[in-house]
Amino acid sequence: MAMLMDGPAAWPVGDAGAEMYALVERLYPVCRSITGDGVRRTLDIVGEYLPLQVHEVPTGTPVLDWTVPPEWNIRDAYIADATGRRVVDFAASTLHVVGYSVPVSATMTLAELRPHLHTLPDHPTWIPYRTSYYAPTWGFCLAQETLDALPDGEYRVEIDSTLADGHLTYAEHVVPGRVTDEVIVSCHVCHPSLANDNLAGIAVAAFLARALSERDPWYTYRFLFAPGTIGAITWLARNADRIDRIRHGLVLACAGDRGPLTYKRSRRGDAEIDRVMAHVLAASGRPHRVVDFSPYGYDERQFCSPGFNLGVGSLTRTPYAGYPEYHTSADNLDFVSPDAMADTLAVCREAFGLLDRNRRYVNLSPYGEPQLGRRGLYDSLGGRSDAKQAQLAMLWVLNLADGEHSLLDMAERSGLPFDAVADAARALHDAGLVKP
Amino acid sequence: MAMLMDGPAAWPVGDAGAEMYALVERLYPVCRSITGDGVRRTLDIVGEYLPLQVHEVPTGTPVLDWTVPPEWNIRDAYIADATGRRVVDFAASTLHVVGYSVPVSATMTLAELRPHLHTLPDHPTWIPYRTSYYAPTWGFCLAQETLDALPDGEYRVEIDSTLADGHLTYAEHVVPGRVTDEVIVSCHVCHPSLANDNLAGIAVAAFLARALSERDPWYTYRFLFAPGTIGAITWLARNADRIDRIRHGLVLACAGDRGPLTYKRSRRGDAEIDRVMAHVLAASGRPHRVVDFSPYGYDERQFCSPGFNLGVGSLTRTPYAGYPEYHTSADNLDFVSPDAMADTLAVCREAFGLLDRNRRYVNLSPYGEPQLGRRGLYDSLGGRSDAKQAQLAMLWVLNLADGEHSLLDMAERSGLPFDAVADAARALHDAGLVKP
Amino acid sequence: MAMLMDGPAAWPVGDAGAEMYALVERLYPVCRSITGDGVRRTLDIVGEYLPLQVHEVPTGTPVLDWTVPPEWNIRDAYIADATGRRVVDFAASTLHVVGYSVPVSATMTLAELRPHLHTLPDHPTWIPYRTSYYAPTWGFCLAQETLDALPDGEYRVEIDSTLADGHLTYAEHVVPGRVTDEVIVSCHVCHPSLANDNLAGIAVAAFLARALSERDPWYTYRFLFAPGTIGAITWLARNADRIDRIRHGLVLACAGDRGPLTYKRSRRGDAEIDRVMAHVLAASGRPHRVVDFSPYGYDERQFCSPGFNLGVGSLTRTPYAGYPEYHTSADNLDFVSPDAMADTLAVCREAFGLLDRNRRYVNLSPYGEPQLGRRGLYDSLGGRSDAKQAQLAMLWVLNLADGEHSLLDMAERSGLPFDAVADAARALHDAGLVKP
Repeated sequence: MAMLMDGPAAWPVGDAGAEMYALVERLYPVCRSITGDGVRRTLDIVGEYLPLQVHEVPTGTPVLDWTVPPEWNIRDAYIADATGRRVVDFAASTLHVVGYSVPVSATMTLAELRPHLHTLPDHPTWIPYRTSYYAPTWGFCLAQETLDALPDGEYRVEIDSTLADGHLTYAEHVVPGRVTDEVIVSCHVCHPSLANDNLAGIAVAAFLARALSERDPWYTYRFLFAPGTIGAITWLARNADRIDRIRHGLVLACAGDRGPLTYKRSRRGDAEIDRVMAHVLAASGRPHRVVDFSPYGYDERQFCSPGFNLGVGSLTRTPYAGYPEYHTSADNLDFVSPDAMADTLAVCREAFGLLDRNRRYVNLSPYGEPQLGRRGLYDSLGGRSDAKQAQLAMLWVLNLADGEHSLLDMAERSGLPFDAVADAARALHDAGLVKP
Repeated sequence: MAMLMDGPAAWPVGDAGAEMYALVERLYPVCRSITGDGVRRTLDIVGEYLPLQVHEVPTGTPVLDWTVPPEWNIRDAYIADATGRRVVDFAASTLHVVGYSVPVSATMTLAELRPHLHTLPDHPTWIPYRTSYYAPTWGFCLAQETLDALPDGEYRVEIDSTLADGHLTYAEHVVPGRVTDEVIVSCHVCHPSLANDNLAGIAVAAFLARALSERDPWYTYRFLFAPGTIGAITWLARNADRIDRIRHGLVLACAGDRGPLTYKRSRRGDAEIDRVMAHVLAASGRPHRVVDFSPYGYDERQFCSPGFNLGVGSLTRTPYAGYPEYHTSADNLDFVSPDAMADTLAVCREAFGLLDRNRRYVNLSPYGEPQLGRRGLYDSLGGRSDAKQAQLAMLWVLNLADGEHSLLDMAERSGLPFDAVADAARALHDAGLVKP
Repeated sequence: MAMLMDGPAAWPVGDAGAEMYALVERLYPVCRSITGDGVRRTLDIVGEYLPLQVHEVPTGTPVLDWTVPPEWNIRDAYIADATGRRVVDFAASTLHVVGYSVPVSATMTLAELRPHLHTLPDHPTWIPYRTSYYAPTWGFCLAQETLDALPDGEYRVEIDSTLADGHLTYAEHVVPGRVTDEVIVSCHVCHPSLANDNLAGIAVAAFLARALSERDPWYTYRFLFAPGTIGAITWLARNADRIDRIRHGLVLACAGDRGPLTYKRSRRGDAEIDRVMAHVLAASGRPHRVVDFSPYGYDERQFCSPGFNLGVGSLTRTPYAGYPEYHTSADNLDFVSPDAMADTLAVCREAFGLLDRNRRYVNLSPYGEPQLGRRGLYDSLGGRSDAKQAQLAMLWVLNLADGEHSLLDMAERSGLPFDAVADAARALHDAGLVKP
């Protein structure tokens, strides 16, 4: 009888770090935005790792308080000097063009061009990342030192982009569980060549989905690969009848840098996912931080808006805007590491392994202790001062199996490892002493 | 649309400290007790600063468990030695006579007089303050060194007082608000020449009332100038139908000494006034203390008796009985300072400014975030890592505007200044995104 | 009117430590187990100190999930070497035989005997304590150094025991109170020659019962002297209709060693007994520990099983399995001291003295403060800055007498001694100002 998913030890490991890093490398050159072929190309690549159900939502579709915007695609963009030399070239970095820039084809002086140029004076060699999704404009991002080297004079400015009716694209992968209650795992797929934010998150999500697909989980796990904000809002708008099934969730982002893990609690603050993540991180001995919810960050903002108020937290390594490389060209392939991604994946596996087994039980013999010895559950030789952990775990489960305490409650109250408590619950269940 | 009272920056300041000190100087010589012309004279003077509604309640009126006592008035009192020299003279200090002393006209030896003499051996130059409201007796208070210098022999003892049917006098000043829910601010007017306890409290209350009168507050503010204990009890007895309107309150006392501020919580411990005062004191960076309720002190004892259990706290500088000068002649005009009174007033203004704006809102677009950019509420240029405080405040308000969180809750949970949160709520309200 | 039991000062003291130690000395040689004549002999001796109602429950009686086991009695047991010398002799220590050993009469080699021998290699001179109540087997416990000295060869093994239908024996002593609500005090009587675990507990329970019998307590106190686990289970099974009356309880064990006291909370964690014990221990200034419930230890396991979930904690000195001498021959008469037992008894007396007086009151004059002076409850001379503790206690009781706060709540919130609060409540009750 295998009603419960096995613990973390049984998970397939492989060289997941290297594989995830290879996926990030493939995704890195693609120019993504909240709509357009970059998203489709990204989902194609991820689709090689796990089957995806891709959704296309037409421009103009009302989604909650928003409307699906025009689809943006870009083929080329550059600033060329008087000699025709491309001093800023989209082909060199997808970050060079402000996302959602309207098409431009003009010649202008540097003075005229300047209001459209974005740099980071504090990091003169880095290119910033900028977008303007909902206010039509255009612009270029470039290194401050590139800008400083530009002589006055006339420049040729070309942005070969289109903003037209089209679609917003997102994808789902569902790992069916034994119950229809769902766990949602979400990551954003709208950022161009930024490795940590969020290619590492996409990679960890994909490999987590694969690992879960090989299991027989309790919950149904739904993985969402969607553009930030508008993607989550579109999904929420189109899945109103499914929201009630979502019991837990996790937003994955910034999953590959070398900093310690940070878990950000759901708006509820004490949702089961909040307790599971805090427990797993603490039990693992890893350096980590657990921080309270704030309505700034990634798509937890949407899942935790007051109308939904879902038990969805967010796992990152260094969190949102917490590192200087954030939203710059320095968030590149060197900034993320296979080991960091493997570590993020390992914690996710452990957390979902625990979440999946975290049940409440009812002691069917709640008056006094049942006689464990008669059932072969207890050492028959009494009087020994060393209580074995397994026996202790059984006593804790029996004592707290009142339908109100989860196995995680029992683990935390007893100080015993969750696995010991879960094993004891299984043994007591097999002996007919407790029921879920 | 100005539904909310503006923040503290907009308050009139003036040289309130000096004006309040001048008021204390005028009130200082008056001999007050729980009834009598001293109270009336005090209210006359305060009435020059703000209109007062004066109430006279006849002796013998039952008030809750008490009865309004006879009215006490005193014209002269002294102890004269054999030569006729007044060795203790009421004209020199109102403290020399035990409050509510019955009339006396007698000649007696020092030995006979001694049981009626009160001194402070530890502070031989100070005159103590004593009363005996409900047990008929008489007595004199004097400096220990004065007593020590008295030779044995016969003394002439005169107390020209009357205890007779009359009235208990108290006054109210009401600042009408937009709602009939009331905030009560109370101070005691029964102590004779004691500057900190409570002339400074009277002065701060008067100037706070004046400042509120110049505003357009949300709540109706009721200022009560009444004798301690029996005055509050009389007011409570005569306003049974108004009690339910009292939402918040503050008892002001010891408002002028140079010590740091102390806020004493209401009996409830987590009333809104408790949270507001703690927040304002902490946010201001002032050294201060917040202490739990105890049923000893000033008229918070009555407002917080278990039958009423109102959300009424108490603000003092050095609290009740917390300084050696307390209830002695050393609580004089030197013991209080204009700056200290101005500081107490400033904190009251800030606290009531916050309380008055502390509303709960409901997000009218609670499913996902509303599109702020479309409404001009959000920078249209995304991708920047520095979130402006105003935008962050809007996100917090939207996220917590579920009808359960007040603006103060939002300020405390977000760590943002209350003003930023209140401004955000106003902007969102103007944009039709939230409603109170 | 003496509705309340007096405080600890009035308790009879005597030389309880020496008397309890003498009782332990008498009980020490008796070979106890969960059934049999050892228990009966023990109860006979305790019965010389206070009248006991002894219960005999037949073998085979179903009790909750258990069945009363066969009765075990033992007359003699030994291992003799080839010369006939008894190398291990039950007459020397009751610990030498594994409790509930089946009869044996055999000759065997040391190698054959070894699986039946139990030692403590880390403490080579100590004899361990072992039992096997529910799995039929036999065995000897001996010092490691004794075992090491045994030459190979043949040994005569005799255990003259009987396991047969009989009875399980336990006893009760009830101190009737003014109400039928009960406090249960339980100790286990099944351990052989182990002084701290649990002869000291038996002695403290007996003397506590005697002390309570000389009082006129509020609660009915029920003392239970029963074998561990099966005894408590038997009592619970036979007293199903009484369980609802049990309001509080305490399991006494390890009451005589020289370590500091440890109180283990009930499963509820905030039961009144939990708060009383923590308060008394803290107020006494004794070094002590208060620890959370765990389902391992003594009969609190049964009383706190989830079906009963009674407010029963456990008081020990060094707790269960917390000292190396635990369940060995080193838990002997030297290991316990008269002073330690007297100290345990004193804390129990103080705690039950407090518990017995810990009532909730309702202020009959809850609107404002009642006029204490009129009732002679308050100094008539006001204006003094030193509030006497008794007056302060009256104000606290009046303020918190809302039917929700117990006297202990008031003591803890006010910081006043419980006795002062209880005295104030009595004075206010006598004055008709509060009622229970």
